[in-house]
Amino acid sequence: MSQPYPFVDPTLFTQNAGAELYIDLSAIVQNYHYLQKRISSAQCGAVVKANAYGLGMIEIAKALAKAGCKDFFVAHLDEGIALRSILNQDYTIYVLHGLPPSTESLFIKHHLTPILNDINQLHHWLKLCNDRNTSYSAGVQFDTGMSRFGIEEEELSNLQQRNWGVFQPSLIMSHLACADTPTHPANRQQLERFQAIKQQIPNCRASLAASSGIFLGQDWHFDLVRPGVALYGGNPTPGQPNPMQSVISLQGTIIQLRHISKGAFIGYGATFTAPKDMRLAWISIGYADGFFRAFSNKISALSPQFPKIPLALLGRVSMDSLCVDITELPDTALQVGDKIEIIGDHHPIDSLAQQVDTIGYEILTSLGNRYHRIYS
Amino acid sequence: MSQPYPFVDPTLFTQNAGAELYIDLSAIVQNYHYLQKRISSAQCGAVVKANAYGLGMIEIAKALAKAGCKDFFVAHLDEGIALRSILNQDYTIYVLHGLPPSTESLFIKHHLTPILNDINQLHHWLKLCNDRNTSYSAGVQFDTGMSRFGIEEEELSNLQQRNWGVFQPSLIMSHLACADTPTHPANRQQLERFQAIKQQIPNCRASLAASSGIFLGQDWHFDLVRPGVALYGGNPTPGQPNPMQSVISLQGTIIQLRHISKGAFIGYGATFTAPKDMRLAWISIGYADGFFRAFSNKISALSPQFPKIPLALLGRVSMDSLCVDITELPDTALQVGDKIEIIGDHHPIDSLAQQVDTIGYEILTSLGNRYHRIYS
Repeated sequence: MSQPYPFVDPTLFTQNAGAELYIDLSAIVQNYHYLQKRISSAQCGAVVKANAYGLGMIEIAKALAKAGCKDFFVAHLDEGIALRSILNQDYTIYVLHGLPPSTESLFIKHHLTPILNDINQLHHWLKLCNDRNTSYSAGVQFDTGMSRFGIEEEELSNLQQRNWGVFQPSLIMSHLACADTPTHPANRQQLERFQAIKQQIPNCRASLAASSGIFLGQDWHFDLVRPGVALYGGNPTPGQPNPMQSVISLQGTIIQLRHISKGAFIGYGATFTAPKDMRLAWISIGYADGFFRAFSNKISALSPQFPKIPLALLGRVSMDSLCVDITELPDTALQVGDKIEIIGDHHPIDSLAQQVDTIGYEILTSLGNRYHRIYS
Repeated sequence: MSQPYPFVDPTLFTQNAGAELYIDLSAIVQNYHYLQKRISSAQCGAVVKANAYGLGMIEIAKALAKAGCKDFFVAHLDEGIALRSILNQDYTIYVLHGLPPSTESLFIKHHLTPILNDINQLHHWLKLCNDRNTSYSAGVQFDTGMSRFGIEEEELSNLQQRNWGVFQPSLIMSHLACADTPTHPANRQQLERFQAIKQQIPNCRASLAASSGIFLGQDWHFDLVRPGVALYGGNPTPGQPNPMQSVISLQGTIIQLRHISKGAFIGYGATFTAPKDMRLAWISIGYADGFFRAFSNKISALSPQFPKIPLALLGRVSMDSLCVDITELPDTALQVGDKIEIIGDHHPIDSLAQQVDTIGYEILTSLGNRYHRIYS
């Protein structure tokens, strides 16, 4: 017995949802154009795996296709199948996790381009192409130092002796491990290894850079770049000002207002004790919505009506709710049903991430299933 | 323009998913019976909010209803509506987040029982009941010290003077903040406050304990207990042996095998450098699947074929993949497509949670959308 995950029907979690997640498609398109301009002669693809980093693969891919993007990257075969349902064959869909055993027919049926990550996958694809005398679209990945996906450098000479027959790869690619640290020596090492591989497989489109790699400079751009997080407003240049437009705003609904007296504690484990009489607002967002429990007692939120007054999170984030301090706001300023901003321009994903020792990517991909998602 | 979150159709993420999540419904039912036995005279409900802590509200509620459970608790109105579609009116569905403004008609339509959390909500419900001369089912929550949901103690005398008319509450309840720490003085304080409230509202079912509260002793049981995490295999008695059956096993698929040489680094940020020649397996689970990036370099996985050999996670968890050390396994023991256990009997949710300073609850509620979920 098996059941797909989402238990909700599409009419649920709209007007009665506990929070609204605004996703600014025009900001994503602006980010795309900004990156396209920056890379000049290369082309700009888009990574939309993991449901476009949690933000909605279908809506975002439609918007980016309209903006001129032709090359889309997903991780899983199933993501590729879902994406093909809204993109015609003018658009290339690359499946980064490669060719799982016995799935060739699905790739052909849905016109998906596997990224062949090892010699076995390449072998299977060569056989398919040569048996049918057709060069079905596939990319080939090489590992240049991350020790993750791709054919190993040592295997390259062995590969050259192999008869590729009718197969012409659509793309050769590799992936940078340290692109968000421009001074890291791995960036140039990986570049040089990739250049050496490219020399041995000429006349083929090449791709090395993702979001941060674009900012390492033109040498890293080759023919196609593959931004993901930068499209979605994450900072591809950590430590420098973020050149990208912010994309999301998460607004939670107040479900309970409360006065507490000095000495009262708040939430699970009684981790916060009121140093004075206080007023609290409980918001309908919790760690089951992907808002990490690690944020407990660590960050602040904001009432859109009082954008200069940070509202500290008090006590532990519960499964379905969290508490903010509204003592500094006027007495009757907020009502049950009002919204409090948890993520937005004043609390961008990267600064939130820093507070809990992670990266903006994980803030995005963790965004939960119970938000009312509003695209604009 | 708005879109429901799940972008997948139900046929996706099954046989080609990157990982399989096994959910043992019979273990959940056994846990239910164990708790029911433990509380003797009280009744045992079930908390199925947040999609039954990430494990599938629909399947689990069906199994628990069959096992005799009559009282189900959700957080959101929308969760209640979804649950009502599979449970008839013999079953009570309590909505813990209370009565959002102007939603009375939805509660009536779907026969849902709001937990009234403040005086305003109570006022609206009283008006509805008395206007229609019908005591519609609703519970009333009192805050006994957690400073979260519920009517405040100070409001109780004011409440007693109010004319409740035809309305008879179905349940009075409160929630414990520190039940997982039996020695915490808040447990007895909250109990005594709740007993005082109960004396003032007699002839009404009462509920105080959730999973850990059940283990504080009979005084905390009242008429109805509300376990959640204990049903799903989490330990309700931290620091003591877990009395519950484990419920889930998460098995990721190997998508790449690799040899690396001494001195090579692994993954983003080059956080792990090989101290010797090593063999690696990359698994198709990443932080976009709710497997926290905080696990990077911290825990071990297991091959079901070699259950005595822990396989350390090496380097950073990527968005869609993670790396385990298979150097100690026989040379050709594993193949692409084989499974590696990430969560299971050997790595229960509570011990995983401890490694990253959180609780088993958050491990469960973070389980991702791309797993093939298999119920047994």
